[in-house]
Amino acid sequence: MNAPALVRESFSAEKWRESAERLFDELRARTADGRGVTRECYDKGENAAIDLFREFAEAHGLKCSFDRAANLLIRAPDDDGTKPALILGSHADSVPQGGNFDGGAGAIAALLCLSRLTMERRSGARPVRALILRGEESAYYGRANIGSRALFGLLLPTDLEAKRRGKGRTLREALTGVKADVKAIAESECLFDTKTALAYLELHIEQGPVMVARDLPTAIVTGIRGNLRHRRIVCKGEAGHSGTVPRWLRRDALLGVADLLMRLDEHWDRLLERGLDLVITTGICSTDSETNALSRIPGEVFFSFEMRSQSFDTLEAFYELFHSECHAVSSLRKVSFEFDDRVYTEPAKMDESIIQGLKRASEQLGFPTELLASGAGHDAAVFANVGIPSGMIFVRNRNGSHNPDELMTIDDFICGLQLMYGFVSVGIQE
Amino acid sequence: MNAPALVRESFSAEKWRESAERLFDELRARTADGRGVTRECYDKGENAAIDLFREFAEAHGLKCSFDRAANLLIRAPDDDGTKPALILGSHADSVPQGGNFDGGAGAIAALLCLSRLTMERRSGARPVRALILRGEESAYYGRANIGSRALFGLLLPTDLEAKRRGKGRTLREALTGVKADVKAIAESECLFDTKTALAYLELHIEQGPVMVARDLPTAIVTGIRGNLRHRRIVCKGEAGHSGTVPRWLRRDALLGVADLLMRLDEHWDRLLERGLDLVITTGICSTDSETNALSRIPGEVFFSFEMRSQSFDTLEAFYELFHSECHAVSSLRKVSFEFDDRVYTEPAKMDESIIQGLKRASEQLGFPTELLASGAGHDAAVFANVGIPSGMIFVRNRNGSHNPDELMTIDDFICGLQLMYGFVSVGIQE
Repeated sequence: MNAPALVRESFSAEKWRESAERLFDELRARTADGRGVTRECYDKGENAAIDLFREFAEAHGLKCSFDRAANLLIRAPDDDGTKPALILGSHADSVPQGGNFDGGAGAIAALLCLSRLTMERRSGARPVRALILRGEESAYYGRANIGSRALFGLLLPTDLEAKRRGKGRTLREALTGVKADVKAIAESECLFDTKTALAYLELHIEQGPVMVARDLPTAIVTGIRGNLRHRRIVCKGEAGHSGTVPRWLRRDALLGVADLLMRLDEHWDRLLERGLDLVITTGICSTDSETNALSRIPGEVFFSFEMRSQSFDTLEAFYELFHSECHAVSSLRKVSFEFDDRVYTEPAKMDESIIQGLKRASEQLGFPTELLASGAGHDAAVFANVGIPSGMIFVRNRNGSHNPDELMTIDDFICGLQLMYGFVSVGIQE
Repeated sequence: MNAPALVRESFSAEKWRESAERLFDELRARTADGRGVTRECYDKGENAAIDLFREFAEAHGLKCSFDRAANLLIRAPDDDGTKPALILGSHADSVPQGGNFDGGAGAIAALLCLSRLTMERRSGARPVRALILRGEESAYYGRANIGSRALFGLLLPTDLEAKRRGKGRTLREALTGVKADVKAIAESECLFDTKTALAYLELHIEQGPVMVARDLPTAIVTGIRGNLRHRRIVCKGEAGHSGTVPRWLRRDALLGVADLLMRLDEHWDRLLERGLDLVITTGICSTDSETNALSRIPGEVFFSFEMRSQSFDTLEAFYELFHSECHAVSSLRKVSFEFDDRVYTEPAKMDESIIQGLKRASEQLGFPTELLASGAGHDAAVFANVGIPSGMIFVRNRNGSHNPDELMTIDDFICGLQLMYGFVSVGIQE
């Protein structure tokens, strides 16, 4: 790439689109694994993605540096990094055998937006920076948002000792390998000067099916759902011979769980009618594979339970309901429920003025102004929860994420990019 | 045991009880496995039980012979085996690590009843014989009632080639080992002259909890439940991210199964209120262990389904209901159900005049006259279904069966034995 030539280039919509296509193709090619892409954090794949973004940035006259958590920060030529800026961010890593767009779309959008602003040499505008984060996916070290958490001193000592997929090198070793300041991270030092961040904006593919179903190329995110989880609840009844124990003497653990799930499903339906934000899921459920049999009444069934909402109050209220239904089912069906530790992840609200700014920008572009909750976690939640006003743009995507079949069209991506640029150039600029 | 002395002995209730205790103790001692008892069919444990019964019979002046399926037939000294007789039967085998009473109680009852009749030298009575069957449990060769089925030419060629627990010697080899007429069995020849059987009566421990719950030392069996089964039904929906797919776009296979089970449970409850005989059980149910996860909407759940009833019509009617509810759940929850082959085992009705005879005998003894369905299978079902009038006496038993904790008291056994003797000496005798 010929940097000096490109810097002198003026903006053209056609070239923007060509650059986007080229970047996505190159990103896929450099991180392909035969099935999809693998961009393991603090390793080859993520490094390859970061190298590509840095090459493109430098070819467009932008300045690159690494922060103390080894994330890539990109600034305009005249930005010394001290003034409060709007940070456009996303992540460079992917799950193993993932798709090209989860993280990649936001990183490329940030790059293209910043390079356009630089070409247009707007003066008087607040600075805009791109931050390409590492280690967003939990697939390798069991902890999500490693790059952003490290920046804010939010990694725990146990996180650093976590081994890659339970048996490889530790996260501490991985971070050392990319020259992160592991000592400071271990001491929970905040490595990010929050005074340099006006706001954080992230573009990301939608990881659910709503935008396809509702025909929305772009959507504005209202918040990132937190969750309350039990990994393993055990319903205990009494095993017995299926032919010889009559209904009135049964304590069937499976019917206990089925009854509970139906009650919760009914409550869920009612709460949605009232407009609350909630999803509930039992992803794992099984009779005991050691002892179950066609002709044996299940004496024990284990299952997981997860609820997600943007609202802490909704989570707590539904959790109460959950326990009261466990209690009701216990009495009715003579079973009992045993719970492991409850795990809580905080919801994050997107900033209201950013949501309004994105709405105005959408209107000006003739795009939909639909609001959507994010069910999956994002680095934007980390920024929001440390008090930096944050926002997210979702771009339509088929087939979910975390698989090679992720499918975002370049047309939809350009819509998302236009919305980001529209917001940055109008919403923030005063 | 001193045979000539015992033959001359006259009946005493006290000695009857002592003999019962001695026989149960000796049976347990000869077939103990460290945990419970193991009387593998056509092998050491079952042979040891049969040897014990034969020694006792011969010591009491009874005549022993083996039929062509290697079952032990015991006759009174003056019985040449040609006249129609009342057959008292049960089985000598047990499941691996089973209890002492399943099968054992009925065999010992038949022996003690026949020896008492012989001591009392009743004349003019119809002959009574004891038949100690082999291979009743399906635990070894996957087929139940091998001994009685072989007698009536009801074993299939595939049954003979079945390997012990899937990998050992074949049933054909096992039968050859005890000198059964394997050629005739393989050709489905009937080895039992049904003209020699007036009726078949079997005493057995109850394998369910009803008699303990209802405080009944003995009960009269009305019929043996047949069953309709699917080993594996698959409910198919669509997997998805638990955080990002809203309720209206979900096709949750687990909620599909839970919904179905609750509907069936409600129908079951209603049919019981109408007095129908029915038990339904899903003993196996699981999300796919390869792909399930806390945060993944289950795309596939497999489960078993079994219903049992004494009535063919009830089975068929509930099976219709089952399919219509699968259909309703499919539409409502956008899932589908895939069924493996349906397996049907015929119910067997106990003979009405035997039931009435057992009731009269119970009344005369001051015992309860309660009727009970048998949920587990028994050789009596084979005899009933070839047209031999059959009956069963249940004796109270704690802790179910097929485990070392089976618990029948000697008091309850004596009640069962008295009922059997009362029926034999009054009900059949003319």
